Amino acid sequence: MNEKAFQDYYNEEHAACYGCGRLNTHGLKIKSYWEGEESVCRFTPAPYHTAIPGFVYGGLIASVIDCHSTGTAAAAAYRAAERPMGSQPEIRFVTASLHVDYLRPTPIDAPLELRGKVKEIKGRKVVVTTTVTSKGEVCARGEVVAIQLTKPFGA
Amino acid sequence: MNEKAFQDYYNEEHAACYGCGRLNTHGLKIKSYWEGEESVCRFTPAPYHTAIPGFVYGGLIASVIDCHSTGTAAAAAYRAAERPMGSQPEIRFVTASLHVDYLRPTPIDAPLELRGKVKEIKGRKVVVTTTVTSKGEVCARGEVVAIQLTKPFGA
Repeated sequence: MNEKAFQDYYNEEHAACYGCGRLNTHGLKIKSYWEGEESVCRFTPAPYHTAIPGFVYGGLIASVIDCHSTGTAAAAAYRAAERPMGSQPEIRFVTASLHVDYLRPTPIDAPLELRGKVKEIKGRKVVVTTTVTSKGEVCARGEVVAIQLTKPFGA
Repeated sequence: MNEKAFQDYYNEEHAACYGCGRLNTHGLKIKSYWEGEESVCRFTPAPYHTAIPGFVYGGLIASVIDCHSTGTAAAAAYRAAERPMGSQPEIRFVTASLHVDYLRPTPIDAPLELRGKVKEIKGRKVVVTTTVTSKGEVCARGEVVAIQLTKPFGA
């Protein structure tokens, strides 16, 4: 895939995230893209991302859902504003709440496919629902409420 | 603290978790203890557990809540059964659902203190609520529905 991922457009000060920052050398560096109306992220767990041997630990699944969802929220807000991604001032979202339902054990020896949908977009709030599929089965479902940053984080 | 943590009692096949397994050399190795009716875990984020620089990323907070909660569920179930922790057959829980509300940015330059409470314990299900405090402020709240394993995970 030659197109840039949502996360490749983040300004430098927003590119240090452990989950999705291209500048975090220790991090997961997840990448998300549009496929029509869905956002898609494919991520291959490391062997040490174990829960019980053979399966992915829930914290990793939560982490990938979280960053995929805030990225999807940003991409959706750029779309809604009819602005190209990466145009300034930057549109960036943080997580207000994260919910994950773990439906079945997630095998560790296969890539995860996350597919996100924008459930709601209103004002500064975007709600993203995501499925996490492995080996053809939906293993987890996530819902993230993302809120647009209007000032520097922590200010 | 000389007492053993909940996680130090897990059988070897349940001690590989990235979040809480004492045998996972890459993992977070969180440790939880009773303090009266609350379970407590203190965890110091690494500098690379960044969201936006200066703050902890939400996936780490979700991960620590998750493992602290399943550990608390196991400890609570041993208590309820009036059995010493570590006695066999092992009582172990997995996460059915995880919810996190992020209340404010969590500083990365201080330890996190998680305090868990058992909200419900009934049959195979234990619900644990957790606060995550940093520098004296509650930065996040979690709720985990944990389900007791009755057969090998994934079987």
